Amino acid sequence: MKPILIRGKPAAGGKLPLLCAPLVAPTREALLAEAATAAAARPDIVEWRVDYFRDIGKPGAVVDAGRALRRRLPGTPILFTRRSAAEGGQPVPIGEGAVVELYREVCGSDVADLVDYEMSNPAESAKVIREAAHGAGIGVVFSYHNFEATPELAALGAEFARAQELGGDVAKVSVMARQPEDVLTLLRATLRASRESLIPLIAVSMGPHGAMSRILGFAFGSALTFGVAASESAPGQMPIGELRAAIEAARKALGG
Amino acid sequence: MKPILIRGKPAAGGKLPLLCAPLVAPTREALLAEAATAAAARPDIVEWRVDYFRDIGKPGAVVDAGRALRRRLPGTPILFTRRSAAEGGQPVPIGEGAVVELYREVCGSDVADLVDYEMSNPAESAKVIREAAHGAGIGVVFSYHNFEATPELAALGAEFARAQELGGDVAKVSVMARQPEDVLTLLRATLRASRESLIPLIAVSMGPHGAMSRILGFAFGSALTFGVAASESAPGQMPIGELRAAIEAARKALGG
Repeated sequence: MKPILIRGKPAAGGKLPLLCAPLVAPTREALLAEAATAAAARPDIVEWRVDYFRDIGKPGAVVDAGRALRRRLPGTPILFTRRSAAEGGQPVPIGEGAVVELYREVCGSDVADLVDYEMSNPAESAKVIREAAHGAGIGVVFSYHNFEATPELAALGAEFARAQELGGDVAKVSVMARQPEDVLTLLRATLRASRESLIPLIAVSMGPHGAMSRILGFAFGSALTFGVAASESAPGQMPIGELRAAIEAARKALGG
Repeated sequence: MKPILIRGKPAAGGKLPLLCAPLVAPTREALLAEAATAAAARPDIVEWRVDYFRDIGKPGAVVDAGRALRRRLPGTPILFTRRSAAEGGQPVPIGEGAVVELYREVCGSDVADLVDYEMSNPAESAKVIREAAHGAGIGVVFSYHNFEATPELAALGAEFARAQELGGDVAKVSVMARQPEDVLTLLRATLRASRESLIPLIAVSMGPHGAMSRILGFAFGSALTFGVAASESAPGQMPIGELRAAIEAARKALGG
């Protein structure tokens, strides 16, 4: 399995899967408090979900909060994400052009180590963000989310492949499991993609039926899993301590 | 998920999955020592693999050892199994007719609570054993093993269905995973069968790639998992303590 790179080096010394804690605070102050809570759970990486940030329309406020977040979490990589409302994020008061500008500012401000951008956005925006990120030594996660259902095997595979075609550094697919079969479909797609892909993968089945993908996805090629340190950001996330315990117990039982 | 019944009641109070420790000793004395070791690991049920028993050709010796085993494991249900060499068991010095007679004797001697018989044997033998078992209030596990590979989804489903058609009380399918995909195929087949089957299922992916089926099979409808208490009886079995810890950690993380 390919590890996720941070500034050219495997994150957390190559540990797989990375445990990622989402941060969803609405203000700078709340963000720093949330970061402190999250740090106690020892995540390998945090995802700042900036769509929850009230001042998302003020790039200066975002960068300022991001810098404070960095100082609060020394040594912890930061994944910067604006999740669109169409893919399960919060509605924001700015248009896509301003979002792209925000990503460019963030990339130029040493506030993030990775940025996540959805492939459903215009290819031109993805290209601008990729170039800004790569120019600053930052990796790009190109992502696909589906909160309604789990598409078929081939469609999931196409999303993993598209992230690589777009020049991404990580391919993320996160889809709702409506029945237990769906988590098996997601894991099959992940396994298949992991054999073909040149970049690391993140694969998630959301919802109660998909929860076990968060524990065992690593065995099928998913390099990162999300767990709740302070707040949940998607359905089916489990407390990071329990997630870690379950992964470690599974790994030990499996003889890894 | 349907629990496995012992004398008409759910085994271990309905706990799912049951943890089963195999016993593979060659002599009565070694069997009792192995049972003592196994008991320390607190299995929910033990499987006496009588094909390892040197005196398998002497029904009196088998029944005598079985009675001593019962006394050594009060309250622990006993699954009696002659695994054929063709399905991964030990070669034995008696023919199938004598094996069927042995099952009949065992069923009439209160030495077992369940018996496992392979569906690859003649249907007439399966019928004789089923009638002897049911006449004594004992359940029958009709089983299919494949140590070479994992058959396709439909073929696995057919084996689960056949166990029910033969009048079995439990359907068992245990197949070798040659690649990680195979465990997903086994779990898909189990999930599908669990929706259609009127009897409880046991599903196992053997080998290193299949090991996680031993931990998470319960989430897809498998009512029993094998773990090593004293000795391994099939490839990929993990120590029962680690298996229990992994199942419990997964269950806790999954919010069950």
